[in-house]
Amino acid sequence: DLRDLSIGALRALKRASKVFVEMYTSIVPGLNFEKLEELVGKRVEELRRSDLEGEGLDRLVSLAEKEDVALLVPGDPFLATTHIIVKLEAMRRGVRVEVFHAPSILNAVLSSTGLQVYKFGRPVTIVKPTHAYRPTTPYRVLAENLSRGLHTLFFLDLKLEEGYAMTALEGIRILREFEEELKNKVVGPQTPFIVVARAASPDELVKVLRLGERAELGPPPHTLIVPGILNPVEIEALEVIANADRSFLEEWNRFVKSLMEFR
Amino acid sequence: DLRDLSIGALRALKRASKVFVEMYTSIVPGLNFEKLEELVGKRVEELRRSDLEGEGLDRLVSLAEKEDVALLVPGDPFLATTHIIVKLEAMRRGVRVEVFHAPSILNAVLSSTGLQVYKFGRPVTIVKPTHAYRPTTPYRVLAENLSRGLHTLFFLDLKLEEGYAMTALEGIRILREFEEELKNKVVGPQTPFIVVARAASPDELVKVLRLGERAELGPPPHTLIVPGILNPVEIEALEVIANADRSFLEEWNRFVKSLMEFR
Repeated sequence: DLRDLSIGALRALKRASKVFVEMYTSIVPGLNFEKLEELVGKRVEELRRSDLEGEGLDRLVSLAEKEDVALLVPGDPFLATTHIIVKLEAMRRGVRVEVFHAPSILNAVLSSTGLQVYKFGRPVTIVKPTHAYRPTTPYRVLAENLSRGLHTLFFLDLKLEEGYAMTALEGIRILREFEEELKNKVVGPQTPFIVVARAASPDELVKVLRLGERAELGPPPHTLIVPGILNPVEIEALEVIANADRSFLEEWNRFVKSLMEFR
Repeated sequence: DLRDLSIGALRALKRASKVFVEMYTSIVPGLNFEKLEELVGKRVEELRRSDLEGEGLDRLVSLAEKEDVALLVPGDPFLATTHIIVKLEAMRRGVRVEVFHAPSILNAVLSSTGLQVYKFGRPVTIVKPTHAYRPTTPYRVLAENLSRGLHTLFFLDLKLEEGYAMTALEGIRILREFEEELKNKVVGPQTPFIVVARAASPDELVKVLRLGERAELGPPPHTLIVPGILNPVEIEALEVIANADRSFLEEWNRFVKSLMEFR
């Protein structure tokens, strides 16, 4: 949303001689292109993947050697390597790079759920399985984090140039499939799935789902969390924010503790 | 910095009938109070810890039941429980809570260092040891993350009401002390300490230090990272951004791999 643009970023966009925007790495609920152009007071050109890689990247940095170029990126650009590589290429060629951050999905998820950052293990992306590529990493990371009592944050696959965005229900289904194969017994009817839909946007939604439960979550972006041991403040937050069932969460705590002892 | 305020937040501050600010949970390099009041067009009242807890919190929420109250919090408010509890108390009493996020330290650290979020284990705070309380948690979390090849992000203790902010050099010293006691052999001359000083502020500094190395880092806030296995893009980023020594980092990779095999 444009309301998340910072004062500093807006100033930089107004000052820049060229403004580009890239929209294939994140979904921006409710981005209005005309409003954006009006706000920054100039034409905004949309870049595609090929404009940020290889020869496209070379052209972009060559332009930045001569003029003040702004690249507007929605979401958390530095979660992926794409924009790190853009920054490094510019720095290597002596182009001064200034980054104006926007709110981060990481922070939004913490604020939306009341979960504590200190209790998150390694995050992981659930990738849409294909015949050729079907990584079980998310399931294995979940099992590993749970064996230490830690929460797991799942980013859900986006292939926006192909029009694909994974929903939370699809993510849960994929985890269940891996459970059936790998049988670590971490995904089952006892598992709470915390869904944050459209984090930090005005119509954000937080729900705690059970395996197989249907729910109206609205369109992506969705984020999924499977908690580890929940402390009393976290349990209360999920009750107040997501109307979660306290005894279901307490039961899960006991289950995770038994996993940890087993380890 | 005020440049990090979002358009949405500024709009909400202008609309609010009362604006409070709390500055005891984070350092805000270069915050100008007069400029803030000028920007939001009204008086801004500073709150202390007691204003956000117990009776103070009750007074604040009672006020918010009657009028449109804005609470401005620097840093990443939802990393600690303080502001979660404020939000829950308001929600429980039927006060509508809208959160306008600002850039997150988590995201700034990723962007500043080029490290990948997927490779971070659990983060942890290094608390200033006293005679009464001397938690070795940060050292134990480091050892655990390293045994899985993961990076460890250390938040450094802040006790702003007592005028205390831990520096990165102090944090490294504390980790070394724990090493001498607990002897997991994870902190030594082979360990790279990645320091981000004043992340996301205009005079941000990123350095890779060796144990015992002196360095001019400037004032806090500092953040400290001990990497796990670094991939080629991460190594290149640390070379370009922090002028790090590639062979030192590659040596560390080999060391971490040996820890993982040992496990």
